[in-house]
Amino acid sequence: MAPANKVASEFEQANKAYASSFQKGQLPLPPARKVAVVTCMDARLDPAKALGLEEGDAHVIRNAGGRTVEALRSVIISQQLLGTREIVVIHHTDCGMLTFSDAEIRTKIEKDLGHKADHIAFLPFSDVKQSVTDDIAVLKSSPLVLDVPITGYVYEVETGKIVKV
Amino acid sequence: MAPANKVASEFEQANKAYASSFQKGQLPLPPARKVAVVTCMDARLDPAKALGLEEGDAHVIRNAGGRTVEALRSVIISQQLLGTREIVVIHHTDCGMLTFSDAEIRTKIEKDLGHKADHIAFLPFSDVKQSVTDDIAVLKSSPLVLDVPITGYVYEVETGKIVKV
Repeated sequence: MAPANKVASEFEQANKAYASSFQKGQLPLPPARKVAVVTCMDARLDPAKALGLEEGDAHVIRNAGGRTVEALRSVIISQQLLGTREIVVIHHTDCGMLTFSDAEIRTKIEKDLGHKADHIAFLPFSDVKQSVTDDIAVLKSSPLVLDVPITGYVYEVETGKIVKV
Repeated sequence: MAPANKVASEFEQANKAYASSFQKGQLPLPPARKVAVVTCMDARLDPAKALGLEEGDAHVIRNAGGRTVEALRSVIISQQLLGTREIVVIHHTDCGMLTFSDAEIRTKIEKDLGHKADHIAFLPFSDVKQSVTDDIAVLKSSPLVLDVPITGYVYEVETGKIVKV
């Protein structure tokens, strides 16, 4: 019988290969390139591959949509305790956040799970360039985020390219 | 003069190489392996490499500490809209979250930035195995998270290994 935690078992196998050739055990805690990346959890994004990141280079913060309002705690810790001084915000084409509204997901959850989710803002958006602009504005307007360079991009899942907003 | 957005410029260069050989333009939005990974933003973690993830495989949610209480919105979207049915939680050794308290970071922020941060719970912890256990409990106790297999690990930044909790 397949284990209930099927993918976790596969991760353990894959990790054995990774650890067997691991040579990065002496890296310092603060990111070498002093940058924090905020992007989406989307399965098609591999930020390390797409941006040329090695282990130790950058903080990578990911959530549904890559929304900065939810990343504020992490960005503040990144800057205040670990010295990052640049931020890159990357949303992407064909994002799941373009496909629903708060009302729709709340209705689905109440119907399927029998619980209300009206207390959660799910943070969908209808325009992926605008969402990048909005999310940079959130960072710039927070008095707890340092005045550092912030650059926004849309990652194209169709081409692998990042396009500056 | 170096551009202000120094690392972003480097990302653009690195991305040209990635996009030039990109062959994953037809991947579907829902994760192929139906799993959501919650882990830390730490620069030394490359979840794709450490777990054997290809583009399209898994949602990867990352924040300071890999705290699930902040990942709930993303996990709910992952399950309700994109069909994931397993969760893996990975915290790690030498985590920045082991190095401070809410009181300490709030004091630092007020001193350095001149603004209070008492409204933010920064979610530090003092034991990385316990934090994994606690964060799995947060998921299991939420009525908005499906009853799916959840596995917790500590990633060792010294060895590249994941160790089950």
